[in-house]
Amino acid sequence: MSEPVRIGLLGRGTVGAAFAGLLAERADAVEATTGRRPELAGTLTRSEGDFSEILARSDVIVELIGGTDPARGYVIDALRAGKPVVTANKQLLAQHGDELFGIAREAAVQLRFEAAVAGVIPIVRTIQESFGVTEVDKVFGIVNGTTNFILSEMAASGAAYGDVLARAQELGYAEADPSDDVNGADAAAKMAILARLAFHTAVTLDQVAYEGIEAIQPDDLAYAQELDLSLKLLGVAERRDGGISVRVFPCFLYSGHPLAPIGGPFNAVMVEAPAITEVTMSGPGAGGVETASAVLGDLVSILAGDAPIHEAREQLPLVTDVPSSFYLHLEVADEPGVLARIAQILGENEISVKSVVQRGIGEDARLVMVVHECLESRFAAAVEEIGGLNEIRSTPRFIRVIEEEFV
Amino acid sequence: MSEPVRIGLLGRGTVGAAFAGLLAERADAVEATTGRRPELAGTLTRSEGDFSEILARSDVIVELIGGTDPARGYVIDALRAGKPVVTANKQLLAQHGDELFGIAREAAVQLRFEAAVAGVIPIVRTIQESFGVTEVDKVFGIVNGTTNFILSEMAASGAAYGDVLARAQELGYAEADPSDDVNGADAAAKMAILARLAFHTAVTLDQVAYEGIEAIQPDDLAYAQELDLSLKLLGVAERRDGGISVRVFPCFLYSGHPLAPIGGPFNAVMVEAPAITEVTMSGPGAGGVETASAVLGDLVSILAGDAPIHEAREQLPLVTDVPSSFYLHLEVADEPGVLARIAQILGENEISVKSVVQRGIGEDARLVMVVHECLESRFAAAVEEIGGLNEIRSTPRFIRVIEEEFV
Repeated sequence: MSEPVRIGLLGRGTVGAAFAGLLAERADAVEATTGRRPELAGTLTRSEGDFSEILARSDVIVELIGGTDPARGYVIDALRAGKPVVTANKQLLAQHGDELFGIAREAAVQLRFEAAVAGVIPIVRTIQESFGVTEVDKVFGIVNGTTNFILSEMAASGAAYGDVLARAQELGYAEADPSDDVNGADAAAKMAILARLAFHTAVTLDQVAYEGIEAIQPDDLAYAQELDLSLKLLGVAERRDGGISVRVFPCFLYSGHPLAPIGGPFNAVMVEAPAITEVTMSGPGAGGVETASAVLGDLVSILAGDAPIHEAREQLPLVTDVPSSFYLHLEVADEPGVLARIAQILGENEISVKSVVQRGIGEDARLVMVVHECLESRFAAAVEEIGGLNEIRSTPRFIRVIEEEFV
Repeated sequence: MSEPVRIGLLGRGTVGAAFAGLLAERADAVEATTGRRPELAGTLTRSEGDFSEILARSDVIVELIGGTDPARGYVIDALRAGKPVVTANKQLLAQHGDELFGIAREAAVQLRFEAAVAGVIPIVRTIQESFGVTEVDKVFGIVNGTTNFILSEMAASGAAYGDVLARAQELGYAEADPSDDVNGADAAAKMAILARLAFHTAVTLDQVAYEGIEAIQPDDLAYAQELDLSLKLLGVAERRDGGISVRVFPCFLYSGHPLAPIGGPFNAVMVEAPAITEVTMSGPGAGGVETASAVLGDLVSILAGDAPIHEAREQLPLVTDVPSSFYLHLEVADEPGVLARIAQILGENEISVKSVVQRGIGEDARLVMVVHECLESRFAAAVEEIGGLNEIRSTPRFIRVIEEEFV
């Protein structure tokens, strides 16, 4: 019999408890696959256990406490002690990635984090290993299940954002304080990690521009359905003009787009590169046992052998003004010449209109359009000018659109 | 500077040439990731090169000649010489998997084959590594791009199978001799490999029951569209009654199914397990550079470190009679009482009807229905009895259906 592998577990919340259960349940399979039987050497919770003692009697540390402090110190200590670490902690990696990967490389110890992004979808492994030497152009997708559930429900029911958020909280799809999910910050942390891996460049959380879904109106979703569009909170990391752009924003997709059918709390990520065309992966974005399953997969990989540790070998500049297509929603006075004036402003800014829906009369007239791709700064300038027209009754609303219509 | 890694390339067809190009193009990235620069040590083609010489001066063998002979001998010689092998050869693994994995384990040398199944989709790595200790219930999907292109085109255009096949050949989506693609044999080889990996059990090609798409009629697709169904050639490997079932067959899917929107020459694979719910992965199923890209990913993994070699540690029996839902197409005499007689036969066999479309009058009457899940042997018995009725004008046609309606 070979030596067992001793696991030090930090945290025993939903994911920690699910991991402990899964580890016991699959111990035979882990032993059959790796030759070593896993056993829990100790568990650290807020009220019980001592980190130094647990570290001393563990071969591998599994960090599931979340947050950056004290998690950061624990992970650093473990790596410096030569013990591989598995973590599901996106904030830790998004904020302290350079430091942690540097220490892991120095100590030649593995640091794995599949569960930090898109739950059980093996996107970290795919980007790091399958496409590790591929020149990736773009990684994008739905990386927050809470917002995807809310947007799916709003579209299906026509209900307002606040009502659907309350239902999501009842069902356990949104936390009591949902701020980081609904304002895009959670997705931004995940996109910082994916951008770093895909482009081999240091990306910090403050470089990711993000917007949330709090301002989405039910009537935007209703107009969009007429235009064959559905709304997602997208994270997009892409190469642009020799640099990269990493952003999170609500975005309309045409019905043929591979991400359009992803509903409810699911996540989905697409990777584009000339050598692979495009690969799409979808699955549950969260859930105790699903996240624990991703953690267990990392543990098995650590036991199975070595793997390269991420290194930011590029220094790509951040590009902030990128081209986008937009949905534009205007409340207008029902007077002759309004459309002409708006069209003139768009034309002067070299923005061309793809489709228009005009609705209502009198005080309640609406002009909803989708414009073709243009630099975001140009669009912003045009919208500011349009917003200043006398015939505009309220601040113009706009949402990005992915124009590509898949067959 | 570290030693370069010398690659012996067997085969220089579409994929071989693409791999040689990609290897040169990405040599810097491979060196940055693994610390070793790859270089081509020699290429074996039908007319040039000597295998023993190439083997002697190579560190890794990349087998892209296809077919089982002489590929099998080359792979065995390489593994026995302690040289890791990357192959894209599905027939080799489906027919000689036990032998080859046994030799690889004995020699403690890696044998990797991501490109053998579903092109650039990292399904082999995902099942072996991410879900390597997960109790997988089911792996299924679209693993043949040629047939998916043909079925997509038939549905879109209403054209007959033969006409669409000819167009697929013109476009390079079907080979001059398309038999193994259209009769399901190619998909069967891939499913034998996926079943082996998912269930850790020896699966041989002759255990996979397969049907192709040659008999699909345009009017089946037309009726199916009325029932909100689209047709795919599915490979399904699943646990059943303590054993496994591995099959390939044309199958209707409701429009909400994650595989329903997969069109053209794309592949897609779903993995189901309690601990992961379901994960879906899609992308190009073939193409020179895409397949070469999967081969390069395997090469990088070999250079990066060790990984477990597949072992068939279970001996699961094959279950052949499984429950399915069916589409049934009957050409009937337009006489009173026909539907009643058919319904009675179905009822006697405990088969219940989900939906019916009745069309036409007189000589050309059609009765098209979808029946709920029942054991396939029962359905076959009922269809035989129905086929014997005087009112039936031609042999009943039937196609399996996945009944699950996703939201």
